[in-house]
Amino acid sequence: MRKPPPLKKLGLSPGSLVYSGDLASSSVRATIFDFSENTLEERALSSSEETLLFAGRDTVSWLDIEGVHDVELVRRVGALFGIHPLTLEDIVNTHQRPKFEEYPDYAFMVLKMLHYDHEACEVSVEQVSLVLGHNYLISFQEAKEGDVFDPVRNRLREGRNRLRTSGADYLAYELMDLIVDHYLNVLEGIGEHIESIEDEITRDPNPALLRRINRLRRQVIFLRRSIWPLRDVFTNLERSTLPFLSKENAVYIRDVYDHTVRTMEIMESSRELLASMLELYLSNLSLRTNEVMKVLAVISTIFLPLTFVAGIYGMNFNTEASPYNMPELNWPLGYPFALGIMLLIFLGMIVFFKRKDWF
Amino acid sequence: MRKPPPLKKLGLSPGSLVYSGDLASSSVRATIFDFSENTLEERALSSSEETLLFAGRDTVSWLDIEGVHDVELVRRVGALFGIHPLTLEDIVNTHQRPKFEEYPDYAFMVLKMLHYDHEACEVSVEQVSLVLGHNYLISFQEAKEGDVFDPVRNRLREGRNRLRTSGADYLAYELMDLIVDHYLNVLEGIGEHIESIEDEITRDPNPALLRRINRLRRQVIFLRRSIWPLRDVFTNLERSTLPFLSKENAVYIRDVYDHTVRTMEIMESSRELLASMLELYLSNLSLRTNEVMKVLAVISTIFLPLTFVAGIYGMNFNTEASPYNMPELNWPLGYPFALGIMLLIFLGMIVFFKRKDWF
Amino acid sequence: MRKPPPLKKLGLSPGSLVYSGDLASSSVRATIFDFSENTLEERALSSSEETLLFAGRDTVSWLDIEGVHDVELVRRVGALFGIHPLTLEDIVNTHQRPKFEEYPDYAFMVLKMLHYDHEACEVSVEQVSLVLGHNYLISFQEAKEGDVFDPVRNRLREGRNRLRTSGADYLAYELMDLIVDHYLNVLEGIGEHIESIEDEITRDPNPALLRRINRLRRQVIFLRRSIWPLRDVFTNLERSTLPFLSKENAVYIRDVYDHTVRTMEIMESSRELLASMLELYLSNLSLRTNEVMKVLAVISTIFLPLTFVAGIYGMNFNTEASPYNMPELNWPLGYPFALGIMLLIFLGMIVFFKRKDWF
Amino acid sequence: MRKPPPLKKLGLSPGSLVYSGDLASSSVRATIFDFSENTLEERALSSSEETLLFAGRDTVSWLDIEGVHDVELVRRVGALFGIHPLTLEDIVNTHQRPKFEEYPDYAFMVLKMLHYDHEACEVSVEQVSLVLGHNYLISFQEAKEGDVFDPVRNRLREGRNRLRTSGADYLAYELMDLIVDHYLNVLEGIGEHIESIEDEITRDPNPALLRRINRLRRQVIFLRRSIWPLRDVFTNLERSTLPFLSKENAVYIRDVYDHTVRTMEIMESSRELLASMLELYLSNLSLRTNEVMKVLAVISTIFLPLTFVAGIYGMNFNTEASPYNMPELNWPLGYPFALGIMLLIFLGMIVFFKRKDWF
Amino acid sequence: MRKPPPLKKLGLSPGSLVYSGDLASSSVRATIFDFSENTLEERALSSSEETLLFAGRDTVSWLDIEGVHDVELVRRVGALFGIHPLTLEDIVNTHQRPKFEEYPDYAFMVLKMLHYDHEACEVSVEQVSLVLGHNYLISFQEAKEGDVFDPVRNRLREGRNRLRTSGADYLAYELMDLIVDHYLNVLEGIGEHIESIEDEITRDPNPALLRRINRLRRQVIFLRRSIWPLRDVFTNLERSTLPFLSKENAVYIRDVYDHTVRTMEIMESSRELLASMLELYLSNLSLRTNEVMKVLAVISTIFLPLTFVAGIYGMNFNTEASPYNMPELNWPLGYPFALGIMLLIFLGMIVFFKRKDWF
Repeated sequence: MRKPPPLKKLGLSPGSLVYSGDLASSSVRATIFDFSENTLEERALSSSEETLLFAGRDTVSWLDIEGVHDVELVRRVGALFGIHPLTLEDIVNTHQRPKFEEYPDYAFMVLKMLHYDHEACEVSVEQVSLVLGHNYLISFQEAKEGDVFDPVRNRLREGRNRLRTSGADYLAYELMDLIVDHYLNVLEGIGEHIESIEDEITRDPNPALLRRINRLRRQVIFLRRSIWPLRDVFTNLERSTLPFLSKENAVYIRDVYDHTVRTMEIMESSRELLASMLELYLSNLSLRTNEVMKVLAVISTIFLPLTFVAGIYGMNFNTEASPYNMPELNWPLGYPFALGIMLLIFLGMIVFFKRKDWF
Repeated sequence: MRKPPPLKKLGLSPGSLVYSGDLASSSVRATIFDFSENTLEERALSSSEETLLFAGRDTVSWLDIEGVHDVELVRRVGALFGIHPLTLEDIVNTHQRPKFEEYPDYAFMVLKMLHYDHEACEVSVEQVSLVLGHNYLISFQEAKEGDVFDPVRNRLREGRNRLRTSGADYLAYELMDLIVDHYLNVLEGIGEHIESIEDEITRDPNPALLRRINRLRRQVIFLRRSIWPLRDVFTNLERSTLPFLSKENAVYIRDVYDHTVRTMEIMESSRELLASMLELYLSNLSLRTNEVMKVLAVISTIFLPLTFVAGIYGMNFNTEASPYNMPELNWPLGYPFALGIMLLIFLGMIVFFKRKDWF
Repeated sequence: MRKPPPLKKLGLSPGSLVYSGDLASSSVRATIFDFSENTLEERALSSSEETLLFAGRDTVSWLDIEGVHDVELVRRVGALFGIHPLTLEDIVNTHQRPKFEEYPDYAFMVLKMLHYDHEACEVSVEQVSLVLGHNYLISFQEAKEGDVFDPVRNRLREGRNRLRTSGADYLAYELMDLIVDHYLNVLEGIGEHIESIEDEITRDPNPALLRRINRLRRQVIFLRRSIWPLRDVFTNLERSTLPFLSKENAVYIRDVYDHTVRTMEIMESSRELLASMLELYLSNLSLRTNEVMKVLAVISTIFLPLTFVAGIYGMNFNTEASPYNMPELNWPLGYPFALGIMLLIFLGMIVFFKRKDWF
Repeated sequence: MRKPPPLKKLGLSPGSLVYSGDLASSSVRATIFDFSENTLEERALSSSEETLLFAGRDTVSWLDIEGVHDVELVRRVGALFGIHPLTLEDIVNTHQRPKFEEYPDYAFMVLKMLHYDHEACEVSVEQVSLVLGHNYLISFQEAKEGDVFDPVRNRLREGRNRLRTSGADYLAYELMDLIVDHYLNVLEGIGEHIESIEDEITRDPNPALLRRINRLRRQVIFLRRSIWPLRDVFTNLERSTLPFLSKENAVYIRDVYDHTVRTMEIMESSRELLASMLELYLSNLSLRTNEVMKVLAVISTIFLPLTFVAGIYGMNFNTEASPYNMPELNWPLGYPFALGIMLLIFLGMIVFFKRKDWF
Repeated sequence: MRKPPPLKKLGLSPGSLVYSGDLASSSVRATIFDFSENTLEERALSSSEETLLFAGRDTVSWLDIEGVHDVELVRRVGALFGIHPLTLEDIVNTHQRPKFEEYPDYAFMVLKMLHYDHEACEVSVEQVSLVLGHNYLISFQEAKEGDVFDPVRNRLREGRNRLRTSGADYLAYELMDLIVDHYLNVLEGIGEHIESIEDEITRDPNPALLRRINRLRRQVIFLRRSIWPLRDVFTNLERSTLPFLSKENAVYIRDVYDHTVRTMEIMESSRELLASMLELYLSNLSLRTNEVMKVLAVISTIFLPLTFVAGIYGMNFNTEASPYNMPELNWPLGYPFALGIMLLIFLGMIVFFKRKDWF
């Protein structure tokens, strides 16, 4: 995930369409939703030319395409709607950063749709490209495990509501809103993971935790790359003067923008928490080393002097050679005397350590 | 507290009213203060329609609502005052970040009211939403353990003062001023906590302190999210040209803004102090490990050589086999000689450690 | 010093005058300097109304007040000069951050005057508020241990110079210049302290140093809060178009601004140096621990094997039971043989440590 | 690579041509591509004056020069095309930072072409200078191991495509696009290296890894210096109003700009990952030290008391002198008794360590 | 060097001339270069009034003054050329930060000329002040060990070149260019020092290195203070509309600006490298401590059990009291048996450590 994108494109002329993702063989799905306040036509397209059926109408058309690895399909749709080759290149090269670009006839937006795999604690990413023109919206995504757009599809089918009456730009805002709201889901997953790591650190700091902290940090670095540029996207979208972006809907962009900022704040908090997890880990490790040291020091400090005393009276000096040679050995109470000395040393040590506060 | 907000809203259309807090069952309280320089009517409302009684008058009305989990109430109040669905959504979704938004007929402000539980050293947060229109102010808050608005309520009841004569916008500034001033209270509590931690670190660095430092850091991260956006709120409020924001009162916004900046500075200092607490903790730990090491090294270094000497003279070589075999054992002064050697080694070590400055 | 200000004000209406400092009982001193190019009248005021004597004249008046805890005095002076209640509140609440505010009739500036106590290595702070109007300047300060304005007072008394001829705004610049220049004094004191700490760290890293480093860091955090806002103060002052701020004197504001920037740079360097002191401290500690470890390892590694050899020959196997039981004990040169083995082990260890470069 | 450039220039007047690279003796290659939609003339130039042959034509000329150490050649080309001496100085002094400069008759761009040596894990850099005028482009590079322009050369030769019809500015964009795309290659190499380092850290943290991490960090610092200024280059290029920069091609600059931003983001991620590698390294080291400590503590703590007990019964007190002197020695079960005590101590220690969770 | 400047000025009125450097007793040197395209007059001035000789001419005059501690000279020159007192104060107070200030009749620039003492690895600084007016340039510097302007002096003497024909502003740019180019020299010295430190760290991390790293960091902090403000200096200089700054020479300012930015980038890299040196130092220290620990643990862990076994058979239980008392002592192969046990323990330990990978 953190690898730079594969460089298939290197050396090709700008505007060359080469799919850069890793899903070249999935099936492709193209659906058109053509709707007005009172009508809704939903149809799976078999050829891109079918979209022409809806071209002249007054209705709003949403061309919902899954599977940008089908470069030929993208090219034909692009030709039908007059999309610039560089835009098409960005659609199929799924390593774009989120952006908003104005073209005379359409607005082009790239967003990242994220999924969080709670098991593997991995964020997977899917690029969603939106081409928003007069009365139409085309959404391109990779043919991965699904998307987050079902609530919009369902509301479209349900009947009369804002979605059916507010134009293609409002539809685009709802899709973007869903994508951004979904980030909170991902952050929630990461937040839970952080909490479980914290619990484990205080219980048992082990190297597996380190690896998990590092993996999470990478996920968050990755998330940042997906989320930060969104601020510019929405700011520029709000300021745009393209004729098919109606002013009444500006308040909804501001709403999505607000959600984005909130998401960023939570993400930055997660970053800080992860950094503090590492510090906590290292502190706990230091603490444990310190504790081990203390035990070692206490035991050594108690038994080394005692063993020395025992060693003294284990020497083999000839007590008969002179009265100065270890007379204690022959004292009637020599042994209790030696044990007494040892006991004194032992108690002295205990007092010493109590004063050092090592117990 | 650091968890991303629950995602109840996910997939709903923008403007859907779903309460996102954790207090869905408390009782609701709605009070209206209707006042002019000479009059004051204070009444607990049983139905939102009662507010219509005050609609046509020249007086200023403050509708003071506690309990935004009563979504139905919020919807009806919203309908009576012509509040935009997105605003209502923000009022009941209590995970908004502080913000200021202009609508044609009203200004909408979100602030965070903080309480600091000194026992648990935890910051709890409550969202306060203000809708400020011509001659009226509506304040929404969650039905938690109370608020900080009593001084304003009391001053209103007390009689003639600035509050009674200066319009709904001035009332709003006083409420915001109270909220911001209360942050200092929270920071004071955190500051005291930091100080007590510091004292303990130098006395006894223990893992419980680490956890407390980390909890405080989280509180401060949390505080930042509540306070930082306020700068923009007040800056935009000051610049706003809405007709019901009188220019004479601008000086009071500047005053609240000043307090906010001061609060932020104290908060940033707390952040830095907390970071330095962690460093202090780790330094103290290193220092203690170093001290333990020294004791261990001194004891080992003194007694290992002594024990070795005792070991030598504990060997059982047959002194009778040859005069080269441990003749010391038979010296008349063999034992004092051995003790002397030990004393020399001991003194040498002491000198060595003195020179190393380990005592 | 790092505690948030006491919250006496909490709940009062904006504009309430409550002194927030810690010096409520000192004596108050109010002096007026009324001067023109040729005249100077200096008089201690007994009542604030005496200032009216100077009101109609063409001269410049400097009302120099020490002791803002006398809230009544401040209120009366405020009434005489038509000062806004919020300004008065800021004057007596001595926890303001430095700021510049324009009012129609006067400019209001808050600065922090710092003193550095070299003994306690503590920075003490005093708030100086300046109210600059047409032909008059009022300076408010707390009645602490004195101020830094004597050079200006003396130059005023000395006679004809720029001060006497250049208006109240120039007088204000000189006062501000003195305050800012004094910061360098404080930073010099801190700088010397840092140097002495550094010397001590390399000699003997002890926990008292840690506490001193931390105290200094707090002082610098505190200084920053006093100095950073000054940039905005002077920038806004320079841009101000109030009629009693003459353009010829703008070059002097730029000069004070320059000094402020220089002060900030030196302060930031102090911050970096303090951070590096902590690193130096920790590095030295690690180094010492490493050294202790080496001594311990060398001694243990030398004497444990030697003691083991001695232990071998201290075993009591019955040499008469079989020729395989410790025949060395009965060798004529058994003892020199054992000592030789020990010497070999000792020399081997020495070579080993030389190769490890531990000596 | 991190050394400041050699200071040959020091003291010369601005505009002096002195080659500052390290390749003064390679051979020089100059090629001209003169093309229009239908024609292409490719020719190795033997003298710079040959370029005059193409001067009057309507075609686009690309003068492709490798070997800026041939200062004389650069000077003559500069004279022919009317290039400012400061520009020429920047071309031959190959330590420029990337930049874009407008001159009345041409635009001047400096970029850095990077190569990554996977074996040595070193980034080598080559300066590419582009002089873009009306109908001509001159590219200067050092005569190092080749360049990344072959795809453009081949497309020029291939025949009709955008390159042949879109003017000198489009040609310049394609060259810049190739250079920027190549950065991803370099970052990919670095990314793989980081991954291999991470694997090794968890297996075996050794000082060679530290050196490799540091070398990579230096490469990335170096990369930053090459890539960051590009943002300004492309922003200024896009805003430029020079007449030979056609507006239709602006979309291609935006494209290159996008790639640059993406490259920077990946680079910043690499930086963060490298910083976390160091932390991982240090954490692993601490962990291993901790583990070593534990083993040492366990062994010491078990055997020191046991050895002490053995030492006790190795003392030579005269059991015949009194019944209080080591009566155990004469007990029939004294030895099993002593072994039993030792076993008890051993088991106690095991339980102790189990409870401390050290096994 | 890092001390705040001495506070001689404290309390003086703005514009007082007091030299603040540390070289009050050196000799003063004042030279005038008066030149046009065809003429050059170079003369050592004995009195400042001699400059009047050149006043009326059409030529360009460069008054080159070394020794700003001669306050009287500076005052007289200031009076002759109509220089503002604040400017003169900045000239003699050599602790200014680099700056550019416009006055009606002249432009005032302060720069820092740096020297690097390779032996002491210390940067020394000298303030250069330039007063650039119509047809004249005055350069003030301290009378330290020389300057970097000789190349300009020589080119002036050499005869016809840009310098002689391009006015006083071009002369000023060349002087500034020399100063900035010289910074690279300083950075090169620091870079070499960093490299030598790095080599030593991996060989032998010792506390002297720490001190050297810290000293270098201070040098770089110091350099930053000298270099960062230059960006603003040159930006403002380029934007200035003073009449004696000709537009044709603007390209040379841009050139100096470019060099400044490059210098800053190299300086920032040095900063990062120094920070990583500290990390490298600490890592190496940890690594060595870890290695020491391992040796200690291996030796202890091998010999403590062996010594224990020897201790067992050194006990004096009476083998005759019962057959349970140490029957091994009387076994014919008791000694080989004990040695065998020790060998087994030894081999077991070796296997254990091999598996732990500690050899």
